[in-house]
Formats: sequence, structure tokens, C-alpha cells
Amino acid sequence: MIIRIKHYGEVKIEDSKNLLLNLIENRIGIDNICNGKGTCGKCKVRFRQGVPEATSADLRYLSVEELEEGVRLACQVKPQKGMEIDVTLSNSFDRKNTVLRRDDQVALDSGLSGISLTIPQPSLEDERGDWDRIIDEYRKVMSEQGLALPSLGVLERLPGTLRKLDYRITAVTWQNRVIDVQPGHDTALHGLAVDIGTTSVAVALIDLKTGEVLGSVSAENGQTAFGGDVISRIAYAGEGLKNRLQLTAAVRSTINTLIDELVLQHEIVRNSIYKMTIVANTTMSHLFLGLDVSNLAVSPYVSVYNQALEFSAKELGLGSNPEAVVQILPNIGSFVGGDTVGALLGAPEVLTQGNHLLLDLGTNCELVLKTEKMMLACSTAAGPAFEGAGIFHGMRAKPGAIEGIRIHEEGVELRVIGDEEALGICGSGLIDGIAQMRQAGIINRKGAFVDPDHKDCSLSDELKSRIRKKEDYWEFVFAFGRQHKKDISLGQRDIEALQLAKGAVCAGIKTLVSLAGISLRDLDSIVMAGTFATYLKKESILSIGLTPHTDPEKIKMAGNAAHLGAIRTLLNQGTFAEGAELARRIQHIELGGDKTFTNFFMRSMYLEPTD
Amino acid sequence: MIIRIKHYGEVKIEDSKNLLLNLIENRIGIDNICNGKGTCGKCKVRFRQGVPEATSADLRYLSVEELEEGVRLACQVKPQKGMEIDVTLSNSFDRKNTVLRRDDQVALDSGLSGISLTIPQPSLEDERGDWDRIIDEYRKVMSEQGLALPSLGVLERLPGTLRKLDYRITAVTWQNRVIDVQPGHDTALHGLAVDIGTTSVAVALIDLKTGEVLGSVSAENGQTAFGGDVISRIAYAGEGLKNRLQLTAAVRSTINTLIDELVLQHEIVRNSIYKMTIVANTTMSHLFLGLDVSNLAVSPYVSVYNQALEFSAKELGLGSNPEAVVQILPNIGSFVGGDTVGALLGAPEVLTQGNHLLLDLGTNCELVLKTEKMMLACSTAAGPAFEGAGIFHGMRAKPGAIEGIRIHEEGVELRVIGDEEALGICGSGLIDGIAQMRQAGIINRKGAFVDPDHKDCSLSDELKSRIRKKEDYWEFVFAFGRQHKKDISLGQRDIEALQLAKGAVCAGIKTLVSLAGISLRDLDSIVMAGTFATYLKKESILSIGLTPHTDPEKIKMAGNAAHLGAIRTLLNQGTFAEGAELARRIQHIELGGDKTFTNFFMRSMYLEPTD
Repeated sequence: MIIRIKHYGEVKIEDSKNLLLNLIENRIGIDNICNGKGTCGKCKVRFRQGVPEATSADLRYLSVEELEEGVRLACQVKPQKGMEIDVTLSNSFDRKNTVLRRDDQVALDSGLSGISLTIPQPSLEDERGDWDRIIDEYRKVMSEQGLALPSLGVLERLPGTLRKLDYRITAVTWQNRVIDVQPGHDTALHGLAVDIGTTSVAVALIDLKTGEVLGSVSAENGQTAFGGDVISRIAYAGEGLKNRLQLTAAVRSTINTLIDELVLQHEIVRNSIYKMTIVANTTMSHLFLGLDVSNLAVSPYVSVYNQALEFSAKELGLGSNPEAVVQILPNIGSFVGGDTVGALLGAPEVLTQGNHLLLDLGTNCELVLKTEKMMLACSTAAGPAFEGAGIFHGMRAKPGAIEGIRIHEEGVELRVIGDEEALGICGSGLIDGIAQMRQAGIINRKGAFVDPDHKDCSLSDELKSRIRKKEDYWEFVFAFGRQHKKDISLGQRDIEALQLAKGAVCAGIKTLVSLAGISLRDLDSIVMAGTFATYLKKESILSIGLTPHTDPEKIKMAGNAAHLGAIRTLLNQGTFAEGAELARRIQHIELGGDKTFTNFFMRSMYLEPTD
Repeated sequence: MIIRIKHYGEVKIEDSKNLLLNLIENRIGIDNICNGKGTCGKCKVRFRQGVPEATSADLRYLSVEELEEGVRLACQVKPQKGMEIDVTLSNSFDRKNTVLRRDDQVALDSGLSGISLTIPQPSLEDERGDWDRIIDEYRKVMSEQGLALPSLGVLERLPGTLRKLDYRITAVTWQNRVIDVQPGHDTALHGLAVDIGTTSVAVALIDLKTGEVLGSVSAENGQTAFGGDVISRIAYAGEGLKNRLQLTAAVRSTINTLIDELVLQHEIVRNSIYKMTIVANTTMSHLFLGLDVSNLAVSPYVSVYNQALEFSAKELGLGSNPEAVVQILPNIGSFVGGDTVGALLGAPEVLTQGNHLLLDLGTNCELVLKTEKMMLACSTAAGPAFEGAGIFHGMRAKPGAIEGIRIHEEGVELRVIGDEEALGICGSGLIDGIAQMRQAGIINRKGAFVDPDHKDCSLSDELKSRIRKKEDYWEFVFAFGRQHKKDISLGQRDIEALQLAKGAVCAGIKTLVSLAGISLRDLDSIVMAGTFATYLKKESILSIGLTPHTDPEKIKMAGNAAHLGAIRTLLNQGTFAEGAELARRIQHIELGGDKTFTNFFMRSMYLEPTD
């Protein structure tokens, strides 16, 4: 059966499966956590034709306005002929432009050039081959520099290209290698900086003739359907080669969809994309390349490669010019990947004089400590709490997510992304909320709820009314749902998840600092990378002890530094080389069996400032 | 329908087409000139099961013994269930080993190495990536030399290979690039020297650890079905991209069949073939690479490339190790290709002190003149007479072909390849026969027959009885067919074809010599390349004036010098570089519109020694 999907056209689907599964199989990005059980309410689609009856799950998760506008949960829908749907509702949130500026930090020296040549035409007196003419002319224009051997693709297209505009051509070169030949002298050169996260993938489009960042789009990593975090992806890949190939195809397909989007949005020619840089954690880059990840899962956790790599787009099945150069940033270790190298290049203040710590928060947190004597890196498994996952009402940072919370006697003030009705709590809301609950006395330093009915409880009645026992645990309600909507709350288990996460981060920092032989007081800055960190309040960070206690001025938010680093390496070859050099120099520390770390971890679980 | 074919197993065929067409479509090498019209008698197959009734064409072309042994012409056979055939009868002739020796002319320095490494095993204290271990170990073993970036294929297989034999591996490198990693320390390294001729393709297998030539096989170029010579192939390719792709697939398939054969014969692992060199004329190399040949057909006859090239086997769809390095010898001009460069490397006496001429006889003849001052090359279209084609009873040099002829008063003595009954005349027999007919007075210097019935005719009665008028032209019978077999003769038109061919060669030589400013007497040698030339008698060459008159001692036969050159470039990188240098240095002369050539040509048609 064929249904029409906005932006995707006609899509073939199987009527024996629900719409969600069909969308996943067709690699159409759609938000989804519960895998079609009808318990997450994420997979919203809007019906333009053939709106189905609302199910009880629809009624539970959708507002009246949404229901009236034809929004339904894809997992509840049995496909019917004539349906027309719009899926951008669910995943458009993160297709926002995150970087839109000319980065002035690096000079434009991408290694890619478009060299205008006017080639002498053949005659009976000049019977050189087409390619040989180009070699000779290039040598003339480039002061005797020679050319590397051509690829088959270049030779295949050469005769036609030369003769199209009277032998006026642009030789697109990567270093001294011709990767394309285009007719005329006004060939566009574009590049892509790709940030492959475990959860989402962002691609920025850059004009490599000017260095201008033209735009950036992002989408959920297509691998999410096969597991939410790195460990579950490795496990899935380990079940057989077919699974691994599936994961590789999924992420490549996500990237290709984003390339499609950029090509349409900016009206560029796909073949004008000649260079890409990739930042990703080690598992993501391995799966993107199609490499075995099984040794990443077992001690001593060995990757297939750490070195910076280079391939052509056609080898990787990417929808750019097939000869485009794809550079992969190097890994520091098996769980400190190219994304961390990218973050260092995107937040180079970490590399300046003094002692600096880079902290990239996520399910897996990467830490790099730079002192005057050494550079150390480690990773620590925080679990998915920072991503809003594993939290009962958790969600990612998108419209409807509570991202900031203030609790006072009269009640609760919420900052909701998009100023909408609260739908859940994202990572920054979680940290803020728990910091505020602790400050208000709703929970103690161990994270345990006070008993609102206890005679000594000094909370206001308003706050008491928000604390309630649900089955066997306590929870605090931030927002009471109107009409059919659910209440948004944090419960005992959510708080425990955060304690584990923040304990791991804090212990990691302390371990690195201890190994480097400096004290916490010697730290000149803690640079927090990742878009998520941008939304954190420094006072909340410090009051729950996410980092060891420090002057709030020393905490700096670097935004999506990894993606910025990818843009910089795209723009400048020297920056790429610097990344390779950094990866070699930084010493990787495995926290796994480390006793120092375990000790720090045990003492870092309390919700209070920590030294 | 399925039939069984010896060496090929079960092959699917269509019963709506005759057996010959089915064999061609299945790319099973079979001799064939008339394309299934039943008029050439070449496409013999032996039936092991299901022998069909003999047709009139079978009776005309096959001997009683053959008919009794179950031999039939494939073009006459309507496929039937249960048939079992053997096709080696028809094409086994040229599957002989042509080169079987260690070539001592060049040192073994192929650029390919198998480097035994024992890699330190990972531990919690040594978490380097698999590939990074190899880089480090290689650097240690190779006195600090670094490695180029790995291919995706190497990385894909790396984790399994490392762990197979306790981290003992062989890194197979091409220059400083790892193209394969094999478990253990005894990896075989093989190479192929490929000679792609317009008519036949020869592939030699070389052990690149010892330099030993293990064997060589050859087969008809699969493109022959689409046209017998270079011009007809270019015309066919020009009819559309699909046609060009067909030609490319055909020759690659021929090469792959020969690789299969070598792999089976020598019991080697296909993936141990890591390097190939290709010699071919310009059109053949273009079609092998899949390049546009349309500009080769029109003035000023421009190729896509002349420079030496390098690809990987997987880009070219060749059945070796996919990462094998494939080097293509450079072209000198559009009709003096890499085969001529190969011939110069295979017959380096041409490059020694003095004035030497290299002559490669064929449908297209290539000539290179080396003097103390310059090197000139040209090509001249001789037509297919030297290949035995375009001659009424012509055939290629295989069992049954008359290769030598002696005419005296009492009759005719024939030397037939394989000492069999004469089936036709090959190129050397043609030249010999015409030289002898001229010497015996059967034809005059203009190539015209004497009238045996004229009163002045002084020929013996025996010879007179062999001259007869057939329709509107005269012919001389060399062999009277017994039973159902045809007579083998040469007629007026055959003689004219040879006159045109030899005239073109002789005029080409004179033109080059004249352009170089030397005289014919200054030539120190005429080196004739090509297996065919080996069978020519010097006295015949000189008496019909195939070359200008010279001391017979100065004529030297170099055998299949092009293929030998391919072997040498495979063995030695310096030889390949020398080839590239030669192609750059040699000046290409276009004879097309040259008046000197036209004048020489008009005066070179007579069958007599020429100055």
C-alpha cells in the first residue's frame, strides 16, 4: 500500500504493521521511545487525509487541539489507503539551525580548491590526451606543481566536460589530486561538518569558497530504533553482521536525509559538496564506518582505530559528490572519541595556559584535563538521565519540555521550551528541579523525600500538596495536567538516577585532577560542552555537586563545541592536523577498575556542594 | 534450460537461441568469425552427451573423424536437455603457456611487500586501537617509516585477522600503504601481467616473492563478438553508453575467466593476487577502463589519457584481491598505446646505442624508431591480413593453420601447425605463400596471376594444375581437401589485401626513417615484436618487401615483447617508471594526412625487395 508523506512523497508501507513501524522501516525520522507500546506519546503525526479514530492512547497523550487538528500517535494507527500524513511535527523540533555564522577563529584553508583552467584545444599538431592537457595546464598555472593520478570517475566524465564550454573548466582539487572536473569557471564548493551523536545527528553546510556557514540541520540518529545508548547499540551489533550493517545503514541514511534537506533548503547542487568532516564518539564512528564494535564492549575495550582517517564519500555511501573527501576526527580512546577532539578544537580555551577541564555531559560523559604538564582524558558512564531518558516524565529538550524550575513557598514556576504547556522534563529541568527540591527541603542530601504528613515537616501547604505517594515511592508534582493530560512530576527513582549520573561525573573530575597531581583549587576553568549544558544554571550545578565546588565564574558553557570543532577542521587543514596531534598527545585513563574513582564515586552521590 | 559444459559446470541457456549465441552470452570463450552464419566452421564443440544430427554445415567443415567423435559446429545446434559439451576444442589452441621462465632482465622490486609483524596484545595498560598497534609496530620494524591511511576494507577485516593467530600477521603493503592484513607470517604474494590485445588476451601469473613466472594463459578477447578490429569496436561503443559498457564488461570478463583459470591451475588463493600490470593498445585500455573512445575515431584522434595510471582491482571489477594495485602502462599516442611501451620494455635492445626500429605487426602496426637524436613512433593501419582475417581461407595461428610454404616445380610443401591436415592459412603462411608464389612466377610484382593457359607460361604442369579461375578471379591451391573438406588456396583478392598491408608497414618505416634524417642503411636493427612475427621467414619478409631491404641479420624477432614488458613492469617499479618516461619522450607522428607517407605507400605495393 502507498501513502503520501509530506516531504517524502509516496512511500510504500505494509498494512500488517502499524504506521510507526512502517515509518521506522522506511527510515523516516520519527520520535519514539517506547517502541510502539503506546506508553511514551512521542510518535505524533498529523493526518492531512484519512484521519483515524482516536484511541485511548491518543486521548491520554494528545491535547484536544491536537486531536482536532488530526494529530495521532503513529504506533496506534493501522495504515489505510488514501492516508496522507505529515511527520515533521514529531521531529521538526531538532531540525533547527544551531550554528549560523562565519567562524572567525580559523583561516579558510580547507585543502580543497577550484582551479579555473582554460585548456588548449586538440589539433593534428597537438594530440595530447584530454587528461594530459589538464596535467600540463595545471602545472603551468600552479608554478610547476604536479598532479596526483586521476580517479576513474574523473576520467569517465572528462571528455564531455572539456567539450561542454570550449575547454574552459574548473579542476576541483583536494591537495594535489583532481577529484572533479566541472565545465566553466564558476564551480561552487561546499562542505559538510557532521556531528554524529548517539541520539541525534547534526550537519552544517559550509560554503568553502567563503567559509560562511550557510545552515545546519539535525535529526534523530536513525540507530535510535535499535537501542537508546552506545552499549545497547554495541550489543545489537554483536548479534550478527546483519545487525551491524543495519546500524551502519541507519546512521548513513540519517546523514543522507539531512544532506537532502540542506540541498533543498539552500538550493545547491549535491555534487558541489566535496568535503566532509565527521565528529563522533568512538562507537558511533565505528558503526558509521561499518567496523566491528565487539571489542569495544569487553575489557580491555579496544577500538579498531583511533588514528584520524580519510575516505571518499562513495566508499561510505554518502549523498554528496561521490569523490568528496571525508575526514574522520581521531579518537583518544575507546570511550573518548573524535567528538571530544572536536570539542577541544571548538573550545580551544581549554588548551590555553593554566589548568582547564573540558566536560561533555551526556549518557557517556567525556572529560579532558589539561594542566601545564599533561593532558588526561577519561569517560564516565552517567546513564541517560542527562538526556531526559530513564526519567519517568523525562523528555528531550524540545517544545513542551520543562528546562528551568523555581520552587518557593507559594508554588512552582516553570520555564517551558516554546512557552507551551509542560509535556515533560528535560535534562536541564531535571538538574534544576532537583536542586530546587533540595533547597526547598523537599528532599534531603541523600535524595530521600521528607514525609509531608510528618508533624515536623515545615513545608508550606502548597508544596505539601504536591508531594504524594505513588504506589511504593514518593513524587513531587511540578505541573498538574489539565483535561486528559498527565501530571508532570519527579519521583524517588528519578532522583536516584540523577544521583548516580552526577556522582559519576564528579568522581571522574576528581580522579583526573588527582592523577594530574594538582588540586581542585588549581583548576582555572571548567568548560562544559554540549548544547544541553548551555541551559544549565551554574548555581544548580554547584548546589547538587555535579562538579566539585568552585567559583561559578570558572564554569563556562561552550555550546555544541564538537560540532563547532568539526566546522573548524572542515575550514582549516591545520586544525585537522592539530586534532590528530591532540589525540596522540592526550593520555587516556580507564576509570573502569580504578579504586580512586570508586572511592570518589561513593562520596559523590550526595546532593550537596562537594570539594 | 541447463546444460553441462566441461570446466564451466552447469550453465543456463535459452533454447530459443542456438548454442553459439548462448555460449557467447555466457561469456564462454569460443572461436567464431561469421557470427553464426555457418560459413566459417570455427565454433567447434565436442558433445559428451546428446550429440545432435550433423547438418550440411557440419558436413562441409568437419572431418569424418570429428563427426564420429561427436564434434559439431555450435551455431548449428539447437540446445536440448541433457546435452553435455566440451568447448576447449575450439579455444584451447591459444590457452597455451607463452611465457614460462624467470625473467632475469630485471631485479625483483615490485613495490609490493609482505611484512611479518607480531603485534603486542591489548591490555588495560595498552588500549591502543587495532590499527594503531599496526602503525606503531610497522614504524618499529621499518626504521621509523610511517604508513599511509588504511582503506575501509583493511579496517573491516582487521579485528578478526589480528586475533586469528595470536596477533601474528602479515601486512601486505604497496609502497607505504597497507592493502591487506593476513593472519600468520606466510602470506603468498602473486601478481598478474595482462596483455589485452584486440583479438586475444593473455595473462601471466607471477610469484612476487620469487619473481618466478608460474604460468600464462590466453583466450579470445570477449569483445570480438562485437567487432573484429579496433575501428569496429569504437564504432560499436559510439552507438550508446550501453554498448560501451558491454565492451568494457566483455574484456573484464575475459580477464576474470583467465584469472579463474590460473587460480585453479596453480591452486592459489585469489586474494593473494595483489598487483597487476596492463599493456594494451590505446583503444583497448580505454574500453577496459570504461572510458569514452568516441574522440579516438575522429580527427585529431584524441585519447582521454596517455599518462600511466593506477587503480584498485575493485574499481575495475577484477577477480583478484579487491585492493590489488592495477597499473596501466602509458600510451604514446592514440594509436600507439601501452602495448608499444610494453614492447619497448620487453625488447630493450631497441633502446641501446645505434639506430633501431621496433615493429609490432598486427591489424594496426606500431612502429618506433630510435636514433641517437630522437625517438619517433607512428601507427599504420595494415588491415587484418596479418591475423589471417579478411583472407578467404585465412585463420589464426592454431593447429591446422598453414604457417610455412615451399613451392617447387613438383608441387607444394606445407608446414602445418600441429602437423595436422591443413584447415587454412595464418599470417606467416600468407606471407610465405605469396613470397613463394612470386618466386615461382605464379604472380608478378604487381601481384597479378600469370595465365596458366597462355602459351608463354613456363610453369610446370603440376603448378599449372593448381592455378584456377574461380568465378571472376584467379586462385592458387595449396592443399586439395580430402573427402568433404575444402581446398585451401590463395586468390587474387587475398594477395591484394597483403599488398595493402605490407605497403602500409613499409611506407611507415620509410616515413619515420626519413623524418629522423637518417637513411635506411643507417638502421642497425629491425626488431619485430609479436608472437606472429616469430614464425615469419626473413627471406620472405624481404622478398615481398614487407620491410625495406636490409641485411637479414639485422632483422630480429622479439616474440611477445609487450607481454614480456608487462611482466617486467610488474616485477620492477623502476621499469614501470621507465615506461612512463619513454611515453613522455617519444614523439608521436600522425601518418594520416602525411604526404611523405602517401608517396611511400604508393611505391611500396609491389611484391619485390624495396629500398
